Amino acid sequence: MTNNERNTEAIKRLYSISESIYEQLDKGQIPKMVLPLRTKANIKFDARTNVWKYGSLRGARSAKKVKGAMMLLRTSYMLELIQEMIETNKSSTLREAYYISEGWGKAKFHSQDESNLLTEDLEIVTQCLREDFKLRPEENGASIIGDINIVETDRKGRKKAVNCRDDVGDSGYGIPYNVEKEKIEIKNTSARFVVAVETGGMFDRLVENGFDEDQNAILVHLKGQPARSTRRFIRRLNDELRLPVIVFTDGDPWSFRIYASVAYGAIKTAHLSEYLATPTAEFIGITASDIENYDLPTDKLTDMDTRALNAELKDPRFNTAFWKGEIDLMLKLGRKSEQQALAKYGLNFVTDTYLPDKLNELGLLKK
Amino acid sequence: MTNNERNTEAIKRLYSISESIYEQLDKGQIPKMVLPLRTKANIKFDARTNVWKYGSLRGARSAKKVKGAMMLLRTSYMLELIQEMIETNKSSTLREAYYISEGWGKAKFHSQDESNLLTEDLEIVTQCLREDFKLRPEENGASIIGDINIVETDRKGRKKAVNCRDDVGDSGYGIPYNVEKEKIEIKNTSARFVVAVETGGMFDRLVENGFDEDQNAILVHLKGQPARSTRRFIRRLNDELRLPVIVFTDGDPWSFRIYASVAYGAIKTAHLSEYLATPTAEFIGITASDIENYDLPTDKLTDMDTRALNAELKDPRFNTAFWKGEIDLMLKLGRKSEQQALAKYGLNFVTDTYLPDKLNELGLLKK
Repeated sequence: MTNNERNTEAIKRLYSISESIYEQLDKGQIPKMVLPLRTKANIKFDARTNVWKYGSLRGARSAKKVKGAMMLLRTSYMLELIQEMIETNKSSTLREAYYISEGWGKAKFHSQDESNLLTEDLEIVTQCLREDFKLRPEENGASIIGDINIVETDRKGRKKAVNCRDDVGDSGYGIPYNVEKEKIEIKNTSARFVVAVETGGMFDRLVENGFDEDQNAILVHLKGQPARSTRRFIRRLNDELRLPVIVFTDGDPWSFRIYASVAYGAIKTAHLSEYLATPTAEFIGITASDIENYDLPTDKLTDMDTRALNAELKDPRFNTAFWKGEIDLMLKLGRKSEQQALAKYGLNFVTDTYLPDKLNELGLLKK
Repeated sequence: MTNNERNTEAIKRLYSISESIYEQLDKGQIPKMVLPLRTKANIKFDARTNVWKYGSLRGARSAKKVKGAMMLLRTSYMLELIQEMIETNKSSTLREAYYISEGWGKAKFHSQDESNLLTEDLEIVTQCLREDFKLRPEENGASIIGDINIVETDRKGRKKAVNCRDDVGDSGYGIPYNVEKEKIEIKNTSARFVVAVETGGMFDRLVENGFDEDQNAILVHLKGQPARSTRRFIRRLNDELRLPVIVFTDGDPWSFRIYASVAYGAIKTAHLSEYLATPTAEFIGITASDIENYDLPTDKLTDMDTRALNAELKDPRFNTAFWKGEIDLMLKLGRKSEQQALAKYGLNFVTDTYLPDKLNELGLLKK
């Protein structure tokens, strides 16, 4: 589908929500929207697509209460806004959408959480992407560097061919908020695999050490918990160029969640896991075993860290022997560590020793 | 000076610190380093350069106490690290430097605050930049978009010519951590002025609305409190291309500080104000008057906001009639507002009405 066809399809599906509300009213029923429950208890592994999706638990947004009725009214206003943006070729941030609702009288959003939630609801009901509604998050800021050729269609419809190593500066190519095919065409690459890196400090280290060129790799800076566009872009690299993906993060419970969101999907966006998650992505560390094996500098786990690790032991996404072992070991050690802690052994240790060790295990090391 | 000459000069000056310590010991004195006090009370306006710098209050880091002696020992280790990085053409993040100190025995840093403080001390004593020491912050992520031609020398010494409108995608050109002349040459531009924008949402709004092309402007995304490289880059655009700079932020005390750090210099980096600050930069809002004049959506000031505004009333950088008036009005209203609140009037209001109003006042509006 072209961008325009996607947008038209989005409008059609949004209209069908309005129609359903109208029909319910017409039959003398109190209108409602039925949605999957978005909780950890309601995500299930889908064996066909290898990602985690919402299960069968359902909840309803009913107009029986004022709050629910308001939600349905907002849906109509939102539909109007989306239609207007598609017609004028505009998009808005979720924050702007929240402020635009100032003009919706009593239906206006009282906090951005409400507008974000509605956006997610609409995605689930219509099976469209937020990007199809022309709604986007605040900012992204993630970037990639490596020998890959892409063509970006810019805001004015101009096509720009970019080699993400030769045509960009040391800060790389900035990933835009929309990375669907209509916006970015992925052409070709000489790279053998993708390394997704949590922190800017480590991304810059790998760039400075020339790791992308030495190992023929594409480096992606996740910038902490990765934006949807970053996860989608990684998935497309994996799908379209058949590149293995490895994930390199700090060694703490929050970083394990970053990996999980790349590989298995996030709880908030489980309705989009097939688009966003890369099930074959491998976690290469920092692991609790690394802390022992490389004798890394550590910090003590906080109470919040310990609670997060214990929650992960109950999270279906971490229900594997590898993760159980690593999480138990981290709890036993009572310590966490950072990617940059590898600098204890000098600035080249990560590219001369640590990553080659890990790539060797995966059969990815260039001889 | 070339990059290499700057680095050699930095080493020479760092050595002179070691020499001074050695001489003091040789004379039977307890060695010390004398430094300006880095407090709000000790920043003074320098009429020659129009920026705020440290005043005459001094403190000493003496080896009389164990802590001071350790600091001097660390200085020697740090010197060794910096020399090694210059020889091998490497740089390190401040975080990596902290971890490298694991190998310094008892002189190791106990927190990153200690290593950051030492780096700032060394800058002040040597009058060099952190970048000359090959030390850099975690990450930057700020970007620019607009018709300006630059040449970046990349990590491998390759020269890359980039037009920051035609050669980049919609996320713009990412500003690297080092923007000195040896790294980035600024060639030419058709732009008439620079707009420094606080939030990513507003930056993207101006990009989508084509404001840079319509008004011949260079847009710089500050990304909240701007990194040194971003402030330095703005100063160079102002110096070398004679471009006026306007600053567009949220309307709250923290955003006022962002403006102050761009225009007047920050308290932590007052020794570098001449490099980093752009004294002629104009603040265009969001002001407290804008909240009234445009009837903008607002949030209530928190206690922390109120305290910050009261502190600004005592800050010499805000000692002007304009700022006193705006800060007093904000305290009176008890409300703050965001850039994106302008979306109350639709997505084009900022570029069709608000910014033209402001540019007109400054005589910068394109007719």
